Amino acid sequence: MGILKELEDVDNIKLSKDKRAVIIIDQTKLPGITEYLTLTTVEEFYEAILKLRVRGAPAIGICAAYGMYCLAQTIDTTKYEAFHKKFHEYKEYLNSSRPTAVNLSWALNRMEQVVLNNKNSTVKEIIELLESEAYKIQWEDIEMCRKISKYGLTLIKEGDGILTHCNTGQLATSKYGTALGPLFLGKEKGLEFKVFADETRPLLQGARLTSYELWKAGIDVTLICDNMASVVMKNGWIQACLVGCDRIAANGDAANKIGTSGVAILAKYYGIPFYVLGPTSTIDVNCKTGDDIKIELRNPDEIKKEFYEKPMALEEVKCYNPAFDVTDHSLITAIVTEKRILRPPFDSSIRKLFEV
Amino acid sequence: MGILKELEDVDNIKLSKDKRAVIIIDQTKLPGITEYLTLTTVEEFYEAILKLRVRGAPAIGICAAYGMYCLAQTIDTTKYEAFHKKFHEYKEYLNSSRPTAVNLSWALNRMEQVVLNNKNSTVKEIIELLESEAYKIQWEDIEMCRKISKYGLTLIKEGDGILTHCNTGQLATSKYGTALGPLFLGKEKGLEFKVFADETRPLLQGARLTSYELWKAGIDVTLICDNMASVVMKNGWIQACLVGCDRIAANGDAANKIGTSGVAILAKYYGIPFYVLGPTSTIDVNCKTGDDIKIELRNPDEIKKEFYEKPMALEEVKCYNPAFDVTDHSLITAIVTEKRILRPPFDSSIRKLFEV
Repeated sequence: MGILKELEDVDNIKLSKDKRAVIIIDQTKLPGITEYLTLTTVEEFYEAILKLRVRGAPAIGICAAYGMYCLAQTIDTTKYEAFHKKFHEYKEYLNSSRPTAVNLSWALNRMEQVVLNNKNSTVKEIIELLESEAYKIQWEDIEMCRKISKYGLTLIKEGDGILTHCNTGQLATSKYGTALGPLFLGKEKGLEFKVFADETRPLLQGARLTSYELWKAGIDVTLICDNMASVVMKNGWIQACLVGCDRIAANGDAANKIGTSGVAILAKYYGIPFYVLGPTSTIDVNCKTGDDIKIELRNPDEIKKEFYEKPMALEEVKCYNPAFDVTDHSLITAIVTEKRILRPPFDSSIRKLFEV
Repeated sequence: MGILKELEDVDNIKLSKDKRAVIIIDQTKLPGITEYLTLTTVEEFYEAILKLRVRGAPAIGICAAYGMYCLAQTIDTTKYEAFHKKFHEYKEYLNSSRPTAVNLSWALNRMEQVVLNNKNSTVKEIIELLESEAYKIQWEDIEMCRKISKYGLTLIKEGDGILTHCNTGQLATSKYGTALGPLFLGKEKGLEFKVFADETRPLLQGARLTSYELWKAGIDVTLICDNMASVVMKNGWIQACLVGCDRIAANGDAANKIGTSGVAILAKYYGIPFYVLGPTSTIDVNCKTGDDIKIELRNPDEIKKEFYEKPMALEEVKCYNPAFDVTDHSLITAIVTEKRILRPPFDSSIRKLFEV
């Protein structure tokens, strides 16, 4: 079966051969060590999500869905009520591992819905349906990323220099990714690009994950510090910027990893197209403009201490550490979704998207 | 004597009370540990400069000048020829510690010139003249920084939010600094500013040195990652950018620490004035435009490994690590020198400066 074969090729999250466990790459060990973890017990799934061993909203959801299927098999009963009780218990526990991750509760609810919708089936039958549902969740994610990648690929051409920020690749999803998707899909088709990856301070997702997965896929990647984007653009090495998004307002303002708006301003200055890629689920039409998007402020220690041998600034020095920033819609050339490519004016192209 | 009193107040480089040694802050231990080193032997001076315990072009020159005075006192002869031979030997050795640092050889040559110009004086007299010359070198640096700071201070007003990049303060000079000078001078006059310091990847001079010395001086400072400058400006928190410079071309294009040009583009976008501060000695009229400025490329390990507990990217991943970038003159509001404030068009304001 084509779908299962494709799912088998996924490297970062997959069901074990005996279907009793989920095998993930431990992202906390990357890029130094590529270590695969076999998760079996509910405690192991909880710990892997909590400790960001699996990270990226879609990836977390997929891991949890497979996890619920594996755990369902361990419930030692043929009685529906007893089965559902234990299943619900596991689900609630996993859901508490990262309470703010929307994809996690979305995937867990979808798995539980299978149990709730099949009260009259045997436990054995329900477990089989859970297996299919988990495959489906991963498959749908791959399909969505594939569509985004396909649209994205029409915006760039072979040999282009591409600047990206943060990590939006396979590791955060399960195949292709969003903003990196066109590059992975292009690679499948034999197209070559020259990618410049911002290291993405303070948590260095660009250095640790993006440069790792692009290099591993055989894509030409050069790692730079965030403050080198300007000179790289000035050198004429960049033909397009591809970035992901966490939330898009009704007017096209896009929240994404801190630093994205700076890249967009540089791109505008140097006359380079700036593309935002993400599923339509990140568009929040109830959010009128970027001003309505609340920006999470994080711990100063991420700037001063994280990853370092010793602190790089005095304890007493204040830090401002916003996790995201909002890129003004006027700086965005196009928004690439799984449904279509949205062009300015975004307020009307977004409205039309949801009218259909 | 006013001058000596002021020199005594300098914290990062000074002559010891008995005038036999130079006391410096070990900048490699900052910001965690404020450790003063007492340098006496030629090997100690050499090691301190080589290992960047004293860094910043003017600071290195001042340290070496005092060093030569201290070493001159240890030369056990009353004969001019023997004295000069040994003095020259010390000078050549110190000069080899950082061969590309222009200020180092400039200060050492100035000290040796005192010896050469006074062949008919006694060794004791020459040593006294060397003491004066060393004081003079430091005093002139303070005076130059004071003038830059004074002009710079006319461009900002009490309560302003100031963004700065890299380190251009007291530690790199001996008082005031260049781009940070107006803030230190302002503080002396009781003026308060809110400073945002870019951490300045990859070597983190902003985190390690700028935030340290501003905090220590009681100036309100907030440390940010380089990629947060855009959102800080968007928040309306910045009324002016102050940066240093390593070399200025005849048309006003200015080379400075990597990332500076990005800050300038953001400032332009947000309508914030962008000021470059530095001595007229950094203006190179033989350099027509920024295109003639060769940019030093540094080791990828500075991006992947420096300061970290373990490498943050694979050994195999390429890096592009330019030490400087060039800010186009069209992005610069004014260039502040010790002689005057230069305004656009810079080609003519720079030409006029050197006509005098």
